[in-house]
Order: sequence, then C-alpha cells, then structure tokens
Amino acid sequence: MNETIKKQLQHKTIRQFTGKKISDEIMDALFDVAVRSASGNGLYSYSIIHIVDEDKKQAIADVCSQNYVKTASDLVIFVVDTYRNAQIAKENEVKEQVGCDMDSFIQGVSDALISAQNMVVSAESLGIGTVYFGSILKDIKKMSEILNLPELTFPIIGLGLGYKAQEPQLKPRLPKNLQIFKDEYKRFDNYTKEIQSFDEEMNEYIDLRDKTKTVGKFTKQVQNKLVNSLGRKRNIIEQIQERGFKIKLV
Amino acid sequence: MNETIKKQLQHKTIRQFTGKKISDEIMDALFDVAVRSASGNGLYSYSIIHIVDEDKKQAIADVCSQNYVKTASDLVIFVVDTYRNAQIAKENEVKEQVGCDMDSFIQGVSDALISAQNMVVSAESLGIGTVYFGSILKDIKKMSEILNLPELTFPIIGLGLGYKAQEPQLKPRLPKNLQIFKDEYKRFDNYTKEIQSFDEEMNEYIDLRDKTKTVGKFTKQVQNKLVNSLGRKRNIIEQIQERGFKIKLV
Repeated sequence: MNETIKKQLQHKTIRQFTGKKISDEIMDALFDVAVRSASGNGLYSYSIIHIVDEDKKQAIADVCSQNYVKTASDLVIFVVDTYRNAQIAKENEVKEQVGCDMDSFIQGVSDALISAQNMVVSAESLGIGTVYFGSILKDIKKMSEILNLPELTFPIIGLGLGYKAQEPQLKPRLPKNLQIFKDEYKRFDNYTKEIQSFDEEMNEYIDLRDKTKTVGKFTKQVQNKLVNSLGRKRNIIEQIQERGFKIKLV
Repeated sequence: MNETIKKQLQHKTIRQFTGKKISDEIMDALFDVAVRSASGNGLYSYSIIHIVDEDKKQAIADVCSQNYVKTASDLVIFVVDTYRNAQIAKENEVKEQVGCDMDSFIQGVSDALISAQNMVVSAESLGIGTVYFGSILKDIKKMSEILNLPELTFPIIGLGLGYKAQEPQLKPRLPKNLQIFKDEYKRFDNYTKEIQSFDEEMNEYIDLRDKTKTVGKFTKQVQNKLVNSLGRKRNIIEQIQERGFKIKLV
C-alpha cells in the first residue's frame, strides 16, 4: 500500500479550518492537477471558478445556507461548460446549435466531477482538508448570477479547501457486499436487516457539526434526508433548461 | 511536489493492455478507496459493478462500439443508485415515493463520478493504466439489461483498468486562462485566436488509436464531435425517466 492510497483510505470531510491561507504555489499545483484530469471526448466541457472575493464567498455561503463555506481558505466552483466549445464552433462556421443537448450536459457534469475529485486527492495528499458543497444547487439561478455565468454553463459542485482545525472520526461506510457487485446488480430482500451492524456503527458516529449527539442510524438518515429532499424540490431540470440546455432535441 | 501529485500530472488514458491480470488484493484495495469517497448527504447513492464474465465484457464492448473495452484486465461500471435507499425507506414506513427526483439523481451522478476518479487515482498510483468509457451511454437500455439493473439505478460511466502496453504522449490541455477564472466567469471575444498555440500543439498530438495521423486541431475536433453528438441524440432524458426518475415532481 503506497502513500497515495493510505491517504485516500483516510478521507474525511473537513468543516473547520485554521484560517491559514493555502499558498498561491500550492493552489496553482492543485489547478494543474484539476485540468490534467480525463475529459469526455477530449472536449474539456467544464470550467473552474476560484472565489477569492470575500463578498462573493459570503453570497455563496448564503446560497448554501452553510456559513462555514466562507471559512475555507479557498473556495472553488466547478462549472459544466459547453459555452466555450459552442463559441469555438460558431467561430468556425458550424451552423447547428451545438453543446446544448443533454448528452453534452452529462458529459460536462462528468468532466467537472472527475476534475473536482482529482483536485481533492491532490489537496489531501498535502494534508489539506476538503469539503464538497452540493448545496450550491439550492439556488442555481442565484449562483449563476454570482458567478456571472453565460448560457450553456451550470454550476455543479463547490469545493472548500483549507488547513484542518478538526480531526473527525472516520465515517462508517455501507457493507461492501451491498454496494459492490460482480457482473450484475444484486437485490436484497431486507436491506434493513443487512445493514444492521452498519446502522449501529452510524448510531455511534459523531459528526463534529453537532457534538452533542450522534448522527443516528443510517435507516433514520435515509428516511429524513430523502423525504426532505422531496420537500426541497429544487427543480433542477427547469434550471438546466434555463441555462440553455435542451432536455429534448426536436 | 509529492508522488501523488507527480503521478496525477502524468495522467494519460491507456487503451492497450498487456493481458496481465490485476490481482484480487489490488482490486480489493481499489474498491476500498472507491467506497471511501465523499458522498452527497452521506447517502451513498451509487453502486459499483465489477465485470468479470467474458460474455458480459463483450456485450458491453458492443454497446460502447469499442473493442478494447474487453481487453482491460478489469472492467468496472459505476451506477447511480437510489434504489437501495428507496428500499430502506420503504422498509421503514416512509409513505412517500423517494429517491426518484432529479435532485437525487444528480446527487447519485456526483457520487458515482467522485468515486470513479478516486479509484482512478489509486490505480494510477500503482502504475495501473485506466480508461473511462462514457460510451456505455450509447445504449442505456441495453446496459441496464446486461447489468440486470432495478428501477432507480442508472449506469453512468465505465472504467477499464489494466497494465499498460503503450505509453501515449501527454495530451495537450486548454490554456489555463480560458478554463480557470477568478471570482467570475470570463468571456473571450475570439476563442479561436486565444487557443491558436494550443490548436497547433493538438495538431501535432498523436492518439495511439490511429498512429498514421495526428488528431488535428482542437477547433476541428470541436466542430466534428459536437455536431456528431447532436446527430447521436442519445435521448438521455428519456432513458433517465425510463429508469424510474421523474424529471418533474408533481
């Protein structure tokens, strides 16, 4: 087992930072890694926005309803981006409207996430803590304004980076036999029974966001979070369309 | 610069393998890394299917129309999976139909891609070559049959792993100033002009899939690939709905 894998196996999300700034040299190296990532069809259908302005950080923290967003040394937003290539196509005599189909969108989502995780591993290899912000999706319209995004772009995930001011427990994971299958998907008759000991582990796990209690059983979390998520109804598809992507080509 | 980052900066997609099998111990370690990845809301909304059956490999290679899919030592499919949690919810008295909204779907897509890239970095750290197969999306219906997928699951990306039988050139990347921005998105008046030297670099780059010629200018690639992609019209949204996800909650 090498150092890379050792570190990856110790991955923990960090939500409290020391305030020490990550140097420009290090951020540059992390960005070099990010853009070296594999990309669907070699089209590089994503962009990265590095937030340094404090007001913007606050505005994004407000969208996320998570104030610790702005406490990270560096905040980075990964953006699906087919605008750049659509412009290149337009400049080069392509008559069709391109980059607006859902295939292109999903390709951009993949590119962006692959790049984000590549950056996370490089940061963690240097002892830097990271936290993803899926919560930027809570208000895509607002995020697009904050970032001054053109059409055919879509902010898909945020990433906070900084030096750790906390050392969380390693969070329990699902039993592997429920998540990794051989050759085909395996259904189980009773998941609640299968995850009993995982449920107990989770019931002892303390998330440092609230040290007064454990996070509770996974079965309980699933109930709460999935029902809440329904309530939230972010209407992602409407926002995808609003950003210029066509869910169906005619 | 540490070993992890050095290796990440040398990332190249590998499409020709020696035939030597990756050991079970190594695959296990890579899967351990994969499931240790960050996950949206801690819901683990993805699964991983490890293809070892040769007929299945062939069937998937056919979907991808890429025969080298089956030459990789190991083939892994990352699947968006809210089925498992929806079952857990059902077993625990949740009356609402959960896990079927687009928010849950996008969360699963993010989870799956983050896990895939985590696995890629760990593999490459051991000198193993990797190749993503976005081409599994060419026939989602067929892929779902091959993998015997239940509703609320969706095969999002494939990953081939194996020992390298080729050493490709490092592929050129977009100029960073066109892809990484500070605080807000930056538009350019003339992208073709901005990428002129990148275009030339690309025009000298040889993809080992066809050694007889270079891949051509990026501007040319964008034209061809984006127009082709329109022609392909995979109707991803229809397939997402077919897999049980609702693009709009009523």
